[in-house]
Amino acid sequence: MAYTIGLDYGTNSVRSIVVRCSDGRELATSVFDYPSGEAGILLDPTDHNLARQHPGDYIQGLEATVTEALSLARSADADFSADKVIGIGVDTTGSSPIPVDENNVALATQPAWREILAAQCWLWKDHTSAEEAAAITELARRHRPQYLAKCGGTYSSEWFWSKIWHCLKVAPEVFSAAFSWVELCDWIPSLLAGVDDPRQVKRGVCAAGHKAFYAEDWGGLPDADFLSLLDPGLADLAGRLYREAHDASEKAGELCAEWAKRLGLPAGIAIAIGEFDVHYGAIGACVEEGTLVKVIGTSTCDCGVVKADKEVADIPGICGIVKGAILPGYYGIEAGQSAVGDIFAWFVNRVCKGNADTHAALTAEAGSLKPGESGLLALDWNNGNRTILVDPLLSGLLLGQTLHTSQAEIYRALIEATAFGARMILERIEEYGVPVRRVVCAGGIAEKNPMLMQIYADVTGREMRLSASSQTCALGSAVSAAVAAGSDKGGYDDFLSAQKAMTRLKDVSYKPEPGSRAVYDELFSLYRKVHDAFGGIGSEELGHVMKDLLRIKTSARDIL
Amino acid sequence: MAYTIGLDYGTNSVRSIVVRCSDGRELATSVFDYPSGEAGILLDPTDHNLARQHPGDYIQGLEATVTEALSLARSADADFSADKVIGIGVDTTGSSPIPVDENNVALATQPAWREILAAQCWLWKDHTSAEEAAAITELARRHRPQYLAKCGGTYSSEWFWSKIWHCLKVAPEVFSAAFSWVELCDWIPSLLAGVDDPRQVKRGVCAAGHKAFYAEDWGGLPDADFLSLLDPGLADLAGRLYREAHDASEKAGELCAEWAKRLGLPAGIAIAIGEFDVHYGAIGACVEEGTLVKVIGTSTCDCGVVKADKEVADIPGICGIVKGAILPGYYGIEAGQSAVGDIFAWFVNRVCKGNADTHAALTAEAGSLKPGESGLLALDWNNGNRTILVDPLLSGLLLGQTLHTSQAEIYRALIEATAFGARMILERIEEYGVPVRRVVCAGGIAEKNPMLMQIYADVTGREMRLSASSQTCALGSAVSAAVAAGSDKGGYDDFLSAQKAMTRLKDVSYKPEPGSRAVYDELFSLYRKVHDAFGGIGSEELGHVMKDLLRIKTSARDIL
Repeated sequence: MAYTIGLDYGTNSVRSIVVRCSDGRELATSVFDYPSGEAGILLDPTDHNLARQHPGDYIQGLEATVTEALSLARSADADFSADKVIGIGVDTTGSSPIPVDENNVALATQPAWREILAAQCWLWKDHTSAEEAAAITELARRHRPQYLAKCGGTYSSEWFWSKIWHCLKVAPEVFSAAFSWVELCDWIPSLLAGVDDPRQVKRGVCAAGHKAFYAEDWGGLPDADFLSLLDPGLADLAGRLYREAHDASEKAGELCAEWAKRLGLPAGIAIAIGEFDVHYGAIGACVEEGTLVKVIGTSTCDCGVVKADKEVADIPGICGIVKGAILPGYYGIEAGQSAVGDIFAWFVNRVCKGNADTHAALTAEAGSLKPGESGLLALDWNNGNRTILVDPLLSGLLLGQTLHTSQAEIYRALIEATAFGARMILERIEEYGVPVRRVVCAGGIAEKNPMLMQIYADVTGREMRLSASSQTCALGSAVSAAVAAGSDKGGYDDFLSAQKAMTRLKDVSYKPEPGSRAVYDELFSLYRKVHDAFGGIGSEELGHVMKDLLRIKTSARDIL
Repeated sequence: MAYTIGLDYGTNSVRSIVVRCSDGRELATSVFDYPSGEAGILLDPTDHNLARQHPGDYIQGLEATVTEALSLARSADADFSADKVIGIGVDTTGSSPIPVDENNVALATQPAWREILAAQCWLWKDHTSAEEAAAITELARRHRPQYLAKCGGTYSSEWFWSKIWHCLKVAPEVFSAAFSWVELCDWIPSLLAGVDDPRQVKRGVCAAGHKAFYAEDWGGLPDADFLSLLDPGLADLAGRLYREAHDASEKAGELCAEWAKRLGLPAGIAIAIGEFDVHYGAIGACVEEGTLVKVIGTSTCDCGVVKADKEVADIPGICGIVKGAILPGYYGIEAGQSAVGDIFAWFVNRVCKGNADTHAALTAEAGSLKPGESGLLALDWNNGNRTILVDPLLSGLLLGQTLHTSQAEIYRALIEATAFGARMILERIEEYGVPVRRVVCAGGIAEKNPMLMQIYADVTGREMRLSASSQTCALGSAVSAAVAAGSDKGGYDDFLSAQKAMTRLKDVSYKPEPGSRAVYDELFSLYRKVHDAFGGIGSEELGHVMKDLLRIKTSARDIL
């Protein structure tokens, strides 16, 4: 028997799982909560947009979870031993770029930079570089429209160049000290492979294509002329980044002696190319052409694939269409909602000042409500809108409240809002010729909240299937590791056979209920009106209101 | 020394105060909470729009508070004795019509009707007759536009004819059993005066003019032809209502022997004409030409007066312009916000599940925020919009929330929303040629919440003065009682001299702070945009959203 390890770096913790290659059985899991900051996130009390992470936490979590998972796997299955592990796959959040020195060591793990926020990993949800994102969008619109066409028409403040440019502006000393920048999903594999020069790090096309304007069509990263329009420093940096990015048909490398020792694994085993969590999650959730995989957690990512020999339209507002980003030989399509579980958590923790029990109580109460019964309508923009408006400066909205509106009604309205947001994505993708014949959901919320899943089915009018694994992303990484190892080591030579053997769906699913669907169709048409008005589609009248509020908020401290 | 009694029937309780006529000193106060229903309000769990009150509670409260106030007054001042009371004034909520039999006895105080909701007093905030209000508006627009001109262009579901027509439709047995209907503010004085025929009840022009389309211009109540367009039953009823309504220059009658005995007061003393609480409240708060009195409580009423020899424009969206409604010889102008304190209470009780301490904690925290700092914007429509949109079917809205938005930020945004609503009213009144040179605030919230008052000053750009009395409405009733009694009994012959002696302002006031004002000017322009969009002014695109939600909500129970 052969086994692989899947490592999944989430927003607050990292997990390792040990998976049997023959059937995808998950032998053991180990989770490590990042010790730094608040729930693993370094915050700035004066700037809510800032979200960083200490790279040392990743290294600590790598060692802790893999060694524990191996030990648990031994207990779980007598057949298992660490020398039967044939590969490691890694998925992470992103775009989460890390400034590194010329030896591929993260600046922030060095004493001089330990406490500097700009020297840490710039977590995906860091929104400090909104201005830079807007400027990149504007410059690309004028000078390189082809760049924008593949990432939905708008470059995001969550992405690679926005963040690095912002660093250059606000922390030039960090920018200068950084020899290069490496995405977390590339950096962990490079550590395992013992790569000590960032220029040698094998970069995945997933992060490169979705977040850094990388594409074969224009020969890789943006050209120096364009980057110089942003800042000559960025053009200069590009020379120390990479020329080529790779899909998961290639390995990131082999496990180096040092990490083999630290983890208790055989040196030389395959390290898969890193991808973002939801991309490997899609693989773990049986993605294939016609399937939309929704990983529903604090935020949501939606992934689909289209054979690379077909023509795929540029879909406005979709985060990205990148060849090889998920499966080799397929375009990967990524969309998403900037906040889903985060919105419910905000309401429970910040507004209701409740706890985990409050979630359960509100879920029970909200579940007894009928569609439309609350009279409420909400927008799911508390953390901006990723798809289809691609605007992080948008904010939340709730309307319809009376003097009787209850907590549970608001809770349900927020869930419904995220369902309407999900429907916007589905409809947009199909509108541009990518049919969705099956929706597969994964992630904690999909698994634990039947009420939410039923609402999603009713709102979208689609059956909601569920991934059998509750660790879809880590499983997808383990699948990729099995492919990276190859069949002669006990793995697989292609993803199709690896997925067939190692991934599956649950028998249970959620089917749309016609009566609810009809009500939600009506509510969705209202959602759409409010969405368009405040999203600035059509009339400009209300499209600027949320941005004006943000501007007033930002200057409030200075004025008074 | 002469004394009068002011009786103030509020939404949840009634209070009596004993006032010295020479200087307005308030000797004693007694408050009685209505015992029926929830906080005195009879509710229907299946219909949030319903709000009724048991008339027996009024009678119980009348006796309880007057006798207690008299006894307290004796303890407070040796000079006082009950035989020195020269008059009683009464103010109440409204429009709160009561179905009565031919002896002026409330149906609901009779065993057969005791438990019937339609036979109770239809409390001002009852919104069950939205359809009837819309139909009356529509019919008046076509056939009697002059009726609408004096009440802001829209007839409300809170008003007399809407309620009675709704009763006729949904509870015809009550409608048939009712010989007549009497407004609470007319009914209490009629009880005290021992009037046993509803046709003999001296009706005040305040309720008649503001709520029942009464005006001298067209000879009283709406004509039979018009009422027949609604329902012939209403035309028939009109013959058993009244032909003439009176301002406070006339008495409602003299205290009858029975009630003199029950209360321990001299028979034959003056009973003032009844007015609504805020109208007498305006008198208690030093209203005069150029003064806008704002009574800020669960909801808000704004009152002003203009000499009756002047031309007053019809002000669209203002609840009413009625000659003699406040002071004899002046037009009374009434506007208001359907919910103010009620919105804060909703948020604290229903959303935060807090208590009175929560209000204090949130007020402290919200007070430390700077204008604009929350990034939030709210509409103050949780109970509909009374002025200037006159639309009870509108609902609340909150926007700008992020994942960090706190309870206190929302609390402050709701306060600011009511301030923006207050500014809409001020601007509308001035726009139509009624200058506001002074704003005087009264009511519990005005007195107890300096943060709110400062926000009102900053948002409106006006100094906010405060009425010296914390029982402005009851004081105004007592002033009216002193005028009804006349100078030869120790009272006054006119309101000007009575107000001068008996009412005053506090020395403290709230002045606009220029920095805050500038921020609030910006926020108000955004409020106005959202207000107009969802209020259906200009574009119709979003104007129907709240109504559609309400329609969906109403039918949600039936569909599923």
